[in-house]
Amino acid sequence: MLHAVLMIGGSGTRFWPLSRKKTPKYLIPIVGEKSMLEQTVERIAPLVPPERILCITSKEMAPAVRRALPALPAKNVVGEPMGRDSATCVALGAVIVYSRDPEAVMLCMPGDSLVGDAGKFRAAVLAGEDIAEMNKLVTFGIRPAGPETRFGYIHRGRLIPGDEGPKVYQVNRFVEKPDLATAEHMVRSGDYYWNSGNFMWRADVILKELARHAPDLHAAMERIRPALGTRQCAAVIRKEYEGLKRISIDYAVMEKAEDVAVVEAEFDWDDVGSWTALERHCAKDAAGNAVAGQVFTLDATGCVVQTDERHLVAALGLKDVVIVHTPDATLVCPKDRANDVKKLVEELERKGLTKYS
Amino acid sequence: MLHAVLMIGGSGTRFWPLSRKKTPKYLIPIVGEKSMLEQTVERIAPLVPPERILCITSKEMAPAVRRALPALPAKNVVGEPMGRDSATCVALGAVIVYSRDPEAVMLCMPGDSLVGDAGKFRAAVLAGEDIAEMNKLVTFGIRPAGPETRFGYIHRGRLIPGDEGPKVYQVNRFVEKPDLATAEHMVRSGDYYWNSGNFMWRADVILKELARHAPDLHAAMERIRPALGTRQCAAVIRKEYEGLKRISIDYAVMEKAEDVAVVEAEFDWDDVGSWTALERHCAKDAAGNAVAGQVFTLDATGCVVQTDERHLVAALGLKDVVIVHTPDATLVCPKDRANDVKKLVEELERKGLTKYS
Repeated sequence: MLHAVLMIGGSGTRFWPLSRKKTPKYLIPIVGEKSMLEQTVERIAPLVPPERILCITSKEMAPAVRRALPALPAKNVVGEPMGRDSATCVALGAVIVYSRDPEAVMLCMPGDSLVGDAGKFRAAVLAGEDIAEMNKLVTFGIRPAGPETRFGYIHRGRLIPGDEGPKVYQVNRFVEKPDLATAEHMVRSGDYYWNSGNFMWRADVILKELARHAPDLHAAMERIRPALGTRQCAAVIRKEYEGLKRISIDYAVMEKAEDVAVVEAEFDWDDVGSWTALERHCAKDAAGNAVAGQVFTLDATGCVVQTDERHLVAALGLKDVVIVHTPDATLVCPKDRANDVKKLVEELERKGLTKYS
Repeated sequence: MLHAVLMIGGSGTRFWPLSRKKTPKYLIPIVGEKSMLEQTVERIAPLVPPERILCITSKEMAPAVRRALPALPAKNVVGEPMGRDSATCVALGAVIVYSRDPEAVMLCMPGDSLVGDAGKFRAAVLAGEDIAEMNKLVTFGIRPAGPETRFGYIHRGRLIPGDEGPKVYQVNRFVEKPDLATAEHMVRSGDYYWNSGNFMWRADVILKELARHAPDLHAAMERIRPALGTRQCAAVIRKEYEGLKRISIDYAVMEKAEDVAVVEAEFDWDDVGSWTALERHCAKDAAGNAVAGQVFTLDATGCVVQTDERHLVAALGLKDVVIVHTPDATLVCPKDRANDVKKLVEELERKGLTKYS
């Protein structure tokens, strides 16, 4: 049966000051009325009922995630004692899902991406499920909108023939986040996809791959497995996590595995990585400003301005500037520095202004 | 005896959102701990006691001005029923002062300028008083810091010999707000001053000049004079004001009068005309940002950032940008558009956002 494992990590500091340590990106409605996490769960709900949706997040955020997703059984929100990157998260998800359903196919996905057409997303998942049942590792490839350097890329190989629906290819290789020239080359070739960070596989298959390519990690999960559902579970997980290194699923498994497929996404996808993402998803005024809340612009173009309905933000004579107002903090920066908001928040913390971070 | 007439007008919309219709520029502490108006009164206090300080403001603002200056007798704050520009304001001040003291010398000054050295300002006033007693009209000339086009200029003539102290010259002519080329020429010549909008004269002398150059205005004041101190006073002033045209003292009298002197200011003077004025008077951080309140900057230079101590404003990667945060409204604009904040506020009103204007 199909299970979903939501990998809910990251602080989303690039969305400061709307996102904070205690209200990360996935818990806030950055685009749309609902939080990114709620949107993710709604997207898969027609395929996966709540009892088969597993959320893996940090121990600190687990209570907030449970509150955000009240339809999920509380035990389906698991808090990691510390961050050990995506391979560890996938491994923990796999051992839990496998213990519940040895025949399970797992859809692993981040909890904070944006998908344009949920129907097409589900069609891709169903196509991926067929391929996963062939014991392959499945990825979802996004046709590049440009030579983006903040994503990994997937080089596709031969077409895997199938029914009507999304095209599926064998994967030749994974490419880590490239430099601009490499990215431009890959985009021109037409044979590369952005790696969306969504994966699919049988739980038993990924556990075998982990045993082969990341034996220490697999061994730790084997020690966790008997504790699952017992009162010692959290303590055992903590003990094992303490001994593990941070390792990504791409590095631990995907780049080494032999039989990987890529489903070509027919849906729009966005990782909503920084404030400039709002331009792609929000309503714009006549001058091309993406605005939300009580915003007043005069001679401003290409700006991203966000406030609530009571506090007026007036942008005069600005070009390509991000302004985000929240009750206790306001950010102003040029659009081309939006990725450095993360750095700004780190500096804030370093200077002791933690009440705002 | 020396009297002061403070001409307290203008909404100071260029300091929006800190200044508002109900709290104009002169009532707020833009530079320093006290409001511009309080600073003005403190500056002249050693020369002019409260009972000889007359404030002329709008009818709407008179109560707030009385509250801001509790040491002044309430009758010394006069509210004009409508704005009729500086000549009308001077004329009303002159007729009131003359009715109290026919020998009075009047120092007319705006209530919202900044003076660097109050002692030197008072020295200039004392020099001006001697000249005013010679039945001359007296202006105060500021040595131009640059070819500013938003001020009128004063062309000085021969030196009027006198005691030690500020130099005093006969005035050749007044120049209205010039274009840039004319301003540059005047600044290079060294014979021109900025017109600071401070004036000094005997009350009887300015009334005679008004009778000669602005007879309608003078006649209106002659009809107001017998009503002064009576219960009909406000009604009479309203009736007369309704019939008057808007006219500035420069246009009505100064440009036409034959015997005008200029006292060369040895004090720093600033009309604090827009947010960029803060750069000249506020503390700056290491990167040259003029900041006040809970401000955090990263890679920002030449910015003017103003907030309170609780609300954080973070400026990332900005150059020469003004950011002003207040509890219900925030302004962001490039420094070179700071003068257009006035226009922004007009647009706000036009769009019905009057709760913020």
